Amino acid sequence: VHHSLLRERSQADFDPYELKLFIFDSEDMLKAKESADKAIEIHDVFRTPSEWHSWDREEKVRDAMRKIYHFHKKQKDIGFQGLTYKRMMVACEESMGQVPVDLHYYMFVTCIKYLASDEQKALWLSDAKKLKMHGCYAQTEMGHGSNIAGLETTATFDRSTDEFVIHTPSLSAYKFWPGELGKFATHAIVFAKLIIDGTDHGVQSFLVEIRDKRNHCLLPGVIAGDIGPKYGFNMKDNGYMALNHVRIPRTQMLSRYSEVSEEGVFTKKGNLKILYTAMQTIRILIVRMAFKNLSKGLTIAIRYGIVRTQFKDKAGSDEERAIIDYQTHQFKLIPILSQCYAFLFVYQKVSKDFSDLKKRIKAGDLTGINDLHTISSGMKAFYTWMTLEGLETCRQSCGGAGYSMFSGLPGLVQDYAAQVTYEGDNTVMAQQGARFLVKSLGKMMKGETLTGWVSYLNKVYEVTEYKCKAEKPEDFDSLETLEEMLVVKTCFMVGDTCMKMMQGDEPMQTKWNEMYQQELVEMSKAHTMLVTFQIFRDGIKSSWLQESTKKHLCNLCKVFAAHQIYLDSAPLFECGYFSGGHQKMLLEYMKMQFKLIRPVMLPLIESFGHNDNILNSCIGNSYGDILENQLESAVNSDLNRKDMFPDFEKYMKPFYNAKI
Amino acid sequence: VHHSLLRERSQADFDPYELKLFIFDSEDMLKAKESADKAIEIHDVFRTPSEWHSWDREEKVRDAMRKIYHFHKKQKDIGFQGLTYKRMMVACEESMGQVPVDLHYYMFVTCIKYLASDEQKALWLSDAKKLKMHGCYAQTEMGHGSNIAGLETTATFDRSTDEFVIHTPSLSAYKFWPGELGKFATHAIVFAKLIIDGTDHGVQSFLVEIRDKRNHCLLPGVIAGDIGPKYGFNMKDNGYMALNHVRIPRTQMLSRYSEVSEEGVFTKKGNLKILYTAMQTIRILIVRMAFKNLSKGLTIAIRYGIVRTQFKDKAGSDEERAIIDYQTHQFKLIPILSQCYAFLFVYQKVSKDFSDLKKRIKAGDLTGINDLHTISSGMKAFYTWMTLEGLETCRQSCGGAGYSMFSGLPGLVQDYAAQVTYEGDNTVMAQQGARFLVKSLGKMMKGETLTGWVSYLNKVYEVTEYKCKAEKPEDFDSLETLEEMLVVKTCFMVGDTCMKMMQGDEPMQTKWNEMYQQELVEMSKAHTMLVTFQIFRDGIKSSWLQESTKKHLCNLCKVFAAHQIYLDSAPLFECGYFSGGHQKMLLEYMKMQFKLIRPVMLPLIESFGHNDNILNSCIGNSYGDILENQLESAVNSDLNRKDMFPDFEKYMKPFYNAKI
Ligand SMILES: Cc1cc2nc3c(=O)[nH]c(=O)nc-3n(C[C@H](O)[C@H](O)[C@H](O)COP(=O)(O)OP(=O)(O)OC[C@H]3O[C@@H](n4cnc5c(N)ncnc54)[C@H](O)[C@@H]3O)c2cc1C
Ligand SMILES: Cc1cc2nc3c(=O)[nH]c(=O)nc-3n(C[C@H](O)[C@H](O)[C@H](O)COP(=O)(O)OP(=O)(O)OC[C@H]3O[C@@H](n4cnc5c(N)ncnc54)[C@H](O)[C@@H]3O)c2cc1C
Repeated sequence: VHHSLLRERSQADFDPYELKLFIFDSEDMLKAKESADKAIEIHDVFRTPSEWHSWDREEKVRDAMRKIYHFHKKQKDIGFQGLTYKRMMVACEESMGQVPVDLHYYMFVTCIKYLASDEQKALWLSDAKKLKMHGCYAQTEMGHGSNIAGLETTATFDRSTDEFVIHTPSLSAYKFWPGELGKFATHAIVFAKLIIDGTDHGVQSFLVEIRDKRNHCLLPGVIAGDIGPKYGFNMKDNGYMALNHVRIPRTQMLSRYSEVSEEGVFTKKGNLKILYTAMQTIRILIVRMAFKNLSKGLTIAIRYGIVRTQFKDKAGSDEERAIIDYQTHQFKLIPILSQCYAFLFVYQKVSKDFSDLKKRIKAGDLTGINDLHTISSGMKAFYTWMTLEGLETCRQSCGGAGYSMFSGLPGLVQDYAAQVTYEGDNTVMAQQGARFLVKSLGKMMKGETLTGWVSYLNKVYEVTEYKCKAEKPEDFDSLETLEEMLVVKTCFMVGDTCMKMMQGDEPMQTKWNEMYQQELVEMSKAHTMLVTFQIFRDGIKSSWLQESTKKHLCNLCKVFAAHQIYLDSAPLFECGYFSGGHQKMLLEYMKMQFKLIRPVMLPLIESFGHNDNILNSCIGNSYGDILENQLESAVNSDLNRKDMFPDFEKYMKPFYNAKI
Repeated sequence: VHHSLLRERSQADFDPYELKLFIFDSEDMLKAKESADKAIEIHDVFRTPSEWHSWDREEKVRDAMRKIYHFHKKQKDIGFQGLTYKRMMVACEESMGQVPVDLHYYMFVTCIKYLASDEQKALWLSDAKKLKMHGCYAQTEMGHGSNIAGLETTATFDRSTDEFVIHTPSLSAYKFWPGELGKFATHAIVFAKLIIDGTDHGVQSFLVEIRDKRNHCLLPGVIAGDIGPKYGFNMKDNGYMALNHVRIPRTQMLSRYSEVSEEGVFTKKGNLKILYTAMQTIRILIVRMAFKNLSKGLTIAIRYGIVRTQFKDKAGSDEERAIIDYQTHQFKLIPILSQCYAFLFVYQKVSKDFSDLKKRIKAGDLTGINDLHTISSGMKAFYTWMTLEGLETCRQSCGGAGYSMFSGLPGLVQDYAAQVTYEGDNTVMAQQGARFLVKSLGKMMKGETLTGWVSYLNKVYEVTEYKCKAEKPEDFDSLETLEEMLVVKTCFMVGDTCMKMMQGDEPMQTKWNEMYQQELVEMSKAHTMLVTFQIFRDGIKSSWLQESTKKHLCNLCKVFAAHQIYLDSAPLFECGYFSGGHQKMLLEYMKMQFKLIRPVMLPLIESFGHNDNILNSCIGNSYGDILENQLESAVNSDLNRKDMFPDFEKYMKPFYNAKI
């Protein structure tokens, strides 16, 4: 192990193991996670070798399915020392990026759970869970992604046969993008407009069998295939599909919330709000993926930053400076580290809220059902943007090494990049967040007292009088002051934007889309960052961690807030809260914080517990043998296994011989 | 052709052809460019098919070399209707991203031109130009990239045989990254420490033959190979190399600026400053690559934005809104468009300055030799960062489609990403820019009057008194006001940072690396943006374009400045130039500008003249048939050509049959 890593590990003035326990919730959970990761690492068939980075799509897709098979087989034959199925799936996924059944479990099975009636569940759920049917989630069409109401696929009720006829009427109605549709899925949940006797009842969902389970051929009327190579997700078979008057029994419309009777009568039933909770599962997963991915990127970048040296401070001196000890390098990585922990605390909070909510719903109590939904669209947008940017910064901070696939960093960037688009394009999601703020402020102005995440808006007038009292950098070193800054900034942005939205006679859509959309998105971000800070701060306070650990997390929480302000402090100047000198003091304050955090960056990031197999990085493993590893991966890489002689004689030698 | 593209093409209130002429300098140049692009497009062997996006590295590397061969062959056999060799190379490169001889020409041949003595040139240059030797530029080692002085490869003079012994003494001395080294190069220019009788004379360059031209085998003592898959550049064979006491004649040290005699006497000669000019060739190329790449990304994103619609403004209305007509979309793309044109004008300016300089040098006049060098390091850093971010924004602005390789956008991002690292890591380059500012301000404070790019710093005290006089958005609509803002901002940042650097007793290196590095980089950016604005503005003014065209470019120039301020206006508030309301007015001002630019975005970007073969994008071609193209690329893609039956029987069917 590299001496610098050893030194930095040993210099932790807190208990990294305690922090690790906290991150994984309990000793049992941590142990289970570690044994699952280990199980993936020790079995040849599950381990992802360094060469994986150079496999083409076919190899990756096939390897992934093979792994899933062996995984189930081993699980059944010998079990993994009592590890749960879900636990093992997650470990599998962490080591490969994606598995070819995650859409199946996360979307298809979830849809059956939440959208199917009890009878349907009884019929389908067990088969789905056992992969006796492999399903995909077929919503997006070539013509419509964000605007789901615009979907064109039709499901026309045929009373005479008691069937729906599912049909793709145009090129723009082709399903496009669904994961696992391209090569694997036997079934699809197809979103289509329900038509009964010429009346459009809006988009509903239908279970459609698309491949013959005996030979995996597409069923009659189904045209489908893989959509080709992508930026990332290349072991995933995202697909396209057209359906030519494919008939399914009436009972295959998912009918927890709406139903069509034999007579063709359409009825809605149940509380649609509960349906929202289904979407929350995915949103929470997205928060989880944010800190999971950021922590992977940071583990690589921080270790590399500690081991890699470049430039001597003085000619003649013996050692070069570790690149992490350049101030700019800390400016790159420490704010990202703070975001990584912020997302962790938000994840803990929203998962807890969500499981509480589910309990309440079971007991028939629907209070608070909207809360999570309203805050989570902003989180979706801004967390995924921040994470993608953070990963790219990690990549760049490793210089040339970060450009090699073997570093693991390009793969993280490429795979993660999908998240700013899917599950709701970020610019669209950010506006959903804004919509709620506009509504809330409207209520407040009508005299209502706001509660929940937006309660700070009750002070929207009051805060305009606030002035920042900081006179030196140290004055920023208070969670109250930092919160005040975020509150003042957000109040000012929300207040100002909402005023504009209320003035003028232009149609609401014009104001929204053409006049103030930029401000709406910006205020949505400010709000999300404020709430994130609050959850982060409260999470630390109420945790069972020792003071010695809390201290560091608290420093990160402060950096999170200060950095958000530093990036965009104009609103604070605009509203008169900041005055000359404050921005520079804030910068100096961040530098003070960086000094405190720098010595514990390694243990802080290693507490996320990514093992070497998961990272699959020649520059970020736990040993720090960056040169040996880079060279080894290079020497063993693909093109070195093949000589180029046919090409040489034909295409290169003629030049040397002047035969061309 | 899609009706929206037709409409927007026809609504241009300026002459796009005139602008195109301007971009390509003259009618002759434009014609040559277009015929070269055409020649590449019409010959099967040169065209890059849509499937290219799914080829693996081996296919790409071999295809590229095959193309180069046929390219030379055809050039020789039939010629390309009088098109120059260089012109055709560039066309080739534009259509593939890179060609496997660009390092050879841009670096290897350039080194011979600038670093070799006249005798050496006479011996080598013609062979190099004819590809009778294929060379690479072997500078970076595993242990040292940015810090070139730290290179460890040794070149030890052996008087007894009149040779240098080139040797790799350690793992960290392995050459790593040189392009074309992995598979193709027969020669390398190796940078190594010259050792004579135990004395280290610093890094010098040496011509080393590494592969046998008869059979392409590595020569004795040479260990080399490809370094494996990368984020981008995957048709390029970047390589590693170790040399085990490889002997070369003394005459193979490149000796324009230094020489070792038979007796082992080391002498420096000539004016090293002239050497800097060699590096300028590459820097200018980097500015060129910035607008070339940005304009490709923008062509795709703007066309897609015009054709792609999503959401109706009102339920029941017929048409959905083109995504480019969302305000946020314009905020994403228009500033990038302004940067693209800014880089074009900078390119024109610096290439002209450079060719003037070369003429002066030939005449023995060295004035102004440093000017270009000092401004170009900041340009290298900030232009490449902006371009990379801009390309990623273009990619994201196409939603899911931008995630498909067939859109062409991921490839642009991945290949371009190398530029923030190579030719000097950006964080290091940004500091070179800062170093010059610190020096200049020092001179100014000693009473010297500054000239050239930094002459605005003469006003560093004076501007602290300035106040922004804008009272409404329209007041920003003046090039003078916008320049003033950039000048005040930069002066404030440079003044403040330099003051800090002068105070305190800490060693200069500590101040630089640990205390104020962040500010140094930030001020370097402000300076670069100011100079860019000035060049952009002056370039428009002095161009021969008609007013109707200039008007639009001028609007872009204003957006460039306003956007730079909007992104980071804190310094203007800090120094008292801005006061409450100015940031918001600036935002409204940008919106006014966007309204003017929006109708001509398509002709403005199409003037860059990228044809469909170059773009190789299923969503960005000149016809706008985005759905047809996406589907066609998908249907024809790799995985659809192979069934998965062996896998199906083994790995999937067992699930369906409950045999697992
Ligand atoms: C890797 C990957 C996996 C996927 N998996 C699935 C899957 O399993 N099942 C499935 O059904 N789908 C899947 N999708 C599709 C995904 O859900 C859509 O790509 C996403 O909903 C966005 O839709 P779109 O691509 O049509 O973009 P569009 O909606 O066309 O948006 C294009 C651009 O327009 C902008 N825009 C659109 N509306 C507005 C507005 N109102 N205001 C401002 N700007 C706007 C957006 O910001 C975006 O930049 C996947 C996509 C990817 C990339
Ligand atoms: C695609 C590609 C092609 C290439 N082609 C060639 C080629 O043909 N020939 C060749 O010789 N080389 C080539 N290179 C290598 C390239 O020149 C180096 O990668 C580059 O010089 C950076 O060096 P490094 O990778 O060692 O990074 P390092 O110098 O190790 O830097 C790593 C990190 O430390 C930071 N850092 C370093 N010093 C400082 C400082 N003083 N202050 C603040 N931060 C600092 C950097 O910002 C960076 O984030 C290529 C690289 C790539 C990616």
